[in-house]
Amino acid sequence: MFPNHGQPLVTAPAETAILSLLLAEGPLSRVELARRTGLSSTAITKAARPLIDDGYLHELPPERTAPGAGRPVNPLAVTVEREFFIGVKISADALYAVACDLRAGLRATAGRSLGPDRSPAAVCALICEFVELLLDAEPAFRERTRHLGIAVSGDVDRAAGEVRYSVLPGWQDVPLAAMVAERTGLNVIVENDVKALTTTEHWFGEGIGTEYFALVTIGAGIGSGLVVDGRLITGAYGVAGEMGHISIDPAGPRCHCGQTGCVEAFASSDAILAAVREGTGRPDLDFDGAVLLARGGDPAAREAFARAGRAIGTGIATLVNLFGPERVVVTGEGLDTYDLLGTHIKDAYAAHAFKAAANCPLTLRPLPWEEWARGAAVLGIQALFP
Amino acid sequence: MFPNHGQPLVTAPAETAILSLLLAEGPLSRVELARRTGLSSTAITKAARPLIDDGYLHELPPERTAPGAGRPVNPLAVTVEREFFIGVKISADALYAVACDLRAGLRATAGRSLGPDRSPAAVCALICEFVELLLDAEPAFRERTRHLGIAVSGDVDRAAGEVRYSVLPGWQDVPLAAMVAERTGLNVIVENDVKALTTTEHWFGEGIGTEYFALVTIGAGIGSGLVVDGRLITGAYGVAGEMGHISIDPAGPRCHCGQTGCVEAFASSDAILAAVREGTGRPDLDFDGAVLLARGGDPAAREAFARAGRAIGTGIATLVNLFGPERVVVTGEGLDTYDLLGTHIKDAYAAHAFKAAANCPLTLRPLPWEEWARGAAVLGIQALFP
Repeated sequence: MFPNHGQPLVTAPAETAILSLLLAEGPLSRVELARRTGLSSTAITKAARPLIDDGYLHELPPERTAPGAGRPVNPLAVTVEREFFIGVKISADALYAVACDLRAGLRATAGRSLGPDRSPAAVCALICEFVELLLDAEPAFRERTRHLGIAVSGDVDRAAGEVRYSVLPGWQDVPLAAMVAERTGLNVIVENDVKALTTTEHWFGEGIGTEYFALVTIGAGIGSGLVVDGRLITGAYGVAGEMGHISIDPAGPRCHCGQTGCVEAFASSDAILAAVREGTGRPDLDFDGAVLLARGGDPAAREAFARAGRAIGTGIATLVNLFGPERVVVTGEGLDTYDLLGTHIKDAYAAHAFKAAANCPLTLRPLPWEEWARGAAVLGIQALFP
Repeated sequence: MFPNHGQPLVTAPAETAILSLLLAEGPLSRVELARRTGLSSTAITKAARPLIDDGYLHELPPERTAPGAGRPVNPLAVTVEREFFIGVKISADALYAVACDLRAGLRATAGRSLGPDRSPAAVCALICEFVELLLDAEPAFRERTRHLGIAVSGDVDRAAGEVRYSVLPGWQDVPLAAMVAERTGLNVIVENDVKALTTTEHWFGEGIGTEYFALVTIGAGIGSGLVVDGRLITGAYGVAGEMGHISIDPAGPRCHCGQTGCVEAFASSDAILAAVREGTGRPDLDFDGAVLLARGGDPAAREAFARAGRAIGTGIATLVNLFGPERVVVTGEGLDTYDLLGTHIKDAYAAHAFKAAANCPLTLRPLPWEEWARGAAVLGIQALFP
């Protein structure tokens, strides 16, 4: 059924172009595909043929056009049930898994808190359990799933399939892809969670059709992903999109990374909590308590959130001034405190965006954990491409 | 001779790939070209044929290989004298012009201070005078030059051929490309000078072969250009690479752009001069005087340069953390005071580059004005491509 296990489905440029367009924006007529790809109608028909034969694409019934407008056209569409993909998001304290179809449509989900044992072996066992659970959800899933994507917060070597470092205790240089592949028989791709989510938003979300796109996540950490011309920027030395670790204030607090004045040193949940504790003289507070205090109007607590919002807004303005995205999506669990952060993010962004760069809209969009797992599943859809 | 005036020389992907590789890194054997482009040897030979027929490429004598190493190979090379390009750099007080060959080799130069009349009409007249002068330098120049590139510091709409804003007084929405094209008969491309120089360094300088590359200029203004995958980032709203206007200190000075704490508000020549004047209590100083004072050991003057260096280094670290270039070239007339800025630039960069991003080397490279004009000439070489 899948002789090319782990190999790309398409390799020729024409096939690649039409499959990716139809995934993101289909159905489309051959005329429209020709216009968008710059290929001839003949080339479109030739490239679509093997994908139709393999069951990945199908022709829709002809669209009725106005009389005299020429032959009716049969738009091409992706056959979304042709293949399924599993995605897993590992967070600091829970696991979320989804099964998606070819256009990243959610088909089944599963989620559970991690137990006290969060070692690589224990998490790997839970991943495999979830995979079995999802593959059992529909007969077609087991039959037509070959890719599993795993998204982890931290430093991931995607090519090696290894988690170099993560927030989970004891996770260092973990060959997670090989561990899970051995037990599931699936082709496993491991990636940083922000990078995976950025690609998903670019392909299937707010970023559709944009040439320059950025996603910023706020919460326990501050991260960002940048897309240029459909490609995620990964950096020559494996570092890119580190919006959390750009310096915005030489007089700012020390960051856990060892530097001074990083956005994250103002705006991570831990940094906000530390500032609220210090400002209110209440070292006993937890994050929820700090939020309650701020919502209750405590000036020191409110200022800690305001300072975090200003740091995030300044960081986004920096990203926009350097890189010029068409749109920035801001997401992450930090949006739960949007009432405390929002105006400060927007004001600082407006104050520091340079000239026409200020036209770049910020879209604040809470994404549930399933969306992060969906981002992981899209790693599998990406594996269809060269 | 040039029926396709202003039209690209190559349009097919294979021709584009081999011409650009041979321009930047030639001569190369067909085997090497096939390896680098992923094309078959047959495709290489087919794509090279029209370029050989048109005189843009030629075959070198066969290279003797070791006995038994197979047939000797004939490397392909660019015929550098097949076409010439004129480049003009307009600075605040002078005009520099060069004639280059196909591989951006300097063939003739001209330079002159601008007179008191720096209106668009006066500068346009001087450009046309320089073009005539250079075209007369060799008979081949007049015969085989069709593109003229003009590089201007400021806000340039390349597609429209207009200078929206520049440091020259009264330059606003100037249709410079049309003005000069009408008088010279050449195809004229106008571009921001930092962008033009970035492309030139990427094609023919320190950036050869890099996927992610950045150039930073320091001096009267602070600018940067970013290249991803061979393409200069231009930004969805026409703003990108504005390293001069990222905010690095909320307590920093007001910038002429209206924002606070921009890199340029610390590090432009004017900002340094203002800081030296204020720190020394000598409002009479000019920039050369400020440099002399600092070199003489005056602490206030030295601190003004140190603060500028720290701002530049922090800005470069920000760029590197977000974008992950393989190498950053730092240039501009500000390097004349490198003795006062250098260690501060490097220290701040090291203090703020995140993890492996710190592996990205800074190359400090003074470029004479001719190089900026060469950057303008390369706009013409770019026009050979789609």
